[in-house]
Amino acid sequence: MATSCTEKPLYLGIDGGGTKCRASIMTHDFQLLGTGLGGPANPFHGIQQAQASICAAAQQALLDAALPPAMLGELIAGVGLAGVNVPSLYQAMSTWQHPFRHMHLTTDLHIACLGAHKRNHGAVLICGTGSCGYALINQTPLFIGGHGFPLGDKGSGAWMGLAAIQAVLLAADGLGPATSLSALIRDFFQADGILLVDKMFGATASDYAKCATVVVDAAAAGDAVASDILTEGAAYLSAVARQLWAADPGRMSMIGGLAARLMPWMDEEVIATLSPALGPPEVGAVHFAMQQVASCV
Amino acid sequence: MATSCTEKPLYLGIDGGGTKCRASIMTHDFQLLGTGLGGPANPFHGIQQAQASICAAAQQALLDAALPPAMLGELIAGVGLAGVNVPSLYQAMSTWQHPFRHMHLTTDLHIACLGAHKRNHGAVLICGTGSCGYALINQTPLFIGGHGFPLGDKGSGAWMGLAAIQAVLLAADGLGPATSLSALIRDFFQADGILLVDKMFGATASDYAKCATVVVDAAAAGDAVASDILTEGAAYLSAVARQLWAADPGRMSMIGGLAARLMPWMDEEVIATLSPALGPPEVGAVHFAMQQVASCV
Repeated sequence: MATSCTEKPLYLGIDGGGTKCRASIMTHDFQLLGTGLGGPANPFHGIQQAQASICAAAQQALLDAALPPAMLGELIAGVGLAGVNVPSLYQAMSTWQHPFRHMHLTTDLHIACLGAHKRNHGAVLICGTGSCGYALINQTPLFIGGHGFPLGDKGSGAWMGLAAIQAVLLAADGLGPATSLSALIRDFFQADGILLVDKMFGATASDYAKCATVVVDAAAAGDAVASDILTEGAAYLSAVARQLWAADPGRMSMIGGLAARLMPWMDEEVIATLSPALGPPEVGAVHFAMQQVASCV
Repeated sequence: MATSCTEKPLYLGIDGGGTKCRASIMTHDFQLLGTGLGGPANPFHGIQQAQASICAAAQQALLDAALPPAMLGELIAGVGLAGVNVPSLYQAMSTWQHPFRHMHLTTDLHIACLGAHKRNHGAVLICGTGSCGYALINQTPLFIGGHGFPLGDKGSGAWMGLAAIQAVLLAADGLGPATSLSALIRDFFQADGILLVDKMFGATASDYAKCATVVVDAAAAGDAVASDILTEGAAYLSAVARQLWAADPGRMSMIGGLAARLMPWMDEEVIATLSPALGPPEVGAVHFAMQQVASCV
């Protein structure tokens, strides 16, 4: 939809993860004007790729809002990215000669939490390409997990994908139990044995995460190896949720592309404590940008 | 030592692994003229790096043998490399415009097996930066494991290093048991928490393997988390050895930089079946080159 230029600035909310990047353009009173989608935006897997994905998503959102491309330089951007809890990556992204009027950078977790609770107090348990627990306690962040792949991110899509491929290779060597994952992973990647190893050469977290739903489906169908993977991942996520509650966040949501699929495997007592997210991370990113603007005045 | 030019060609044996590359220059009757050492030579972690490491090791061996650098073009090279069991990496290395008179390329496992047994029948269990089982059954190779890091290579230095760092990060989050590895790994890398994550950004198998002896030492000192890592890795290597014996190789050796440290954790019955290696992989590489030359005549 089109909008006329107003004196109030427009906001760009960016939620950048390991697989894709979402952009929303909003007015100062949270009217959504347009949305866009870009590629991977976790700088851990490429700083230039992340910047290109953010720009592509923003341009698409301008197009969707029927605003001219040159408006990019007028937007006040709130940018939440996976990976920028790592100091060197935060540094690399914050020195970016970005095309926006202003850019306010924070973690994807921070904006997810702001979006989910619409206040500076709450917690989120994230399960998508990566996994992480995050609580915002009166504006002070607490991170549990979220160390990236392959160091951490247990229970995430990338972790499930790697675990499944490891199990398939063990089974092929006669060193692990037979599993329906062998045929399912072969069909998914169109390769097995050493050709599967070859295909995964240089694979990123996002590449591994692509087969996560294959693992979840196999577990749901009763495969013991896939069930063990889901059980271990879900137990970790339940433990992260309990650690977050210990910080007394008041409200907690579980979000991310695989959240709904993992919940049935998690501790029922933990699941009972979760509340729905009130809004998406992109809206949290706009909240964040507004807070930063307000604190500068 | 110096040598005069003879009509018989000189041979270069190369053993290239994930951390370093060894070169030996030998006469047609296995007299050792000189040795050299280069950097990482597993093309999985960089094809140009592997080629540069091979050349550096070869030049150093020429220098050690008091032979002129220009002799490089006279050498018949037998090159055994980690990683080239992956078809695309074999292809990339075999099309290399190498500086030798001839180059005969095979896996590091093949030359290790030829070196250990001095015949085309036998098996090797390798534990260094990576891990793998390999048997040569009347010239036909059998691979068990060896799928590279992080897909496989259980029990290897890289696998132990990653497992230790994962355990340290879990402990820091209060999600895993306390372990002496926390202080040991912090001292080793001079970083902990998110700064350790930052330090391991883009880490290779070789980088992870650097702290493997820290894990072995902690296990020997009784740390339960380190002991669990060693126990799991050693159980895998014992299982690989049993799979290799099933192919009836006649003779089996365990080799690699961490072999001696892992043996005390392995199944005693398996250890009792092992024989010492009769020679190093570089000598196996010269054997291989000679076999290839002979089969071409």
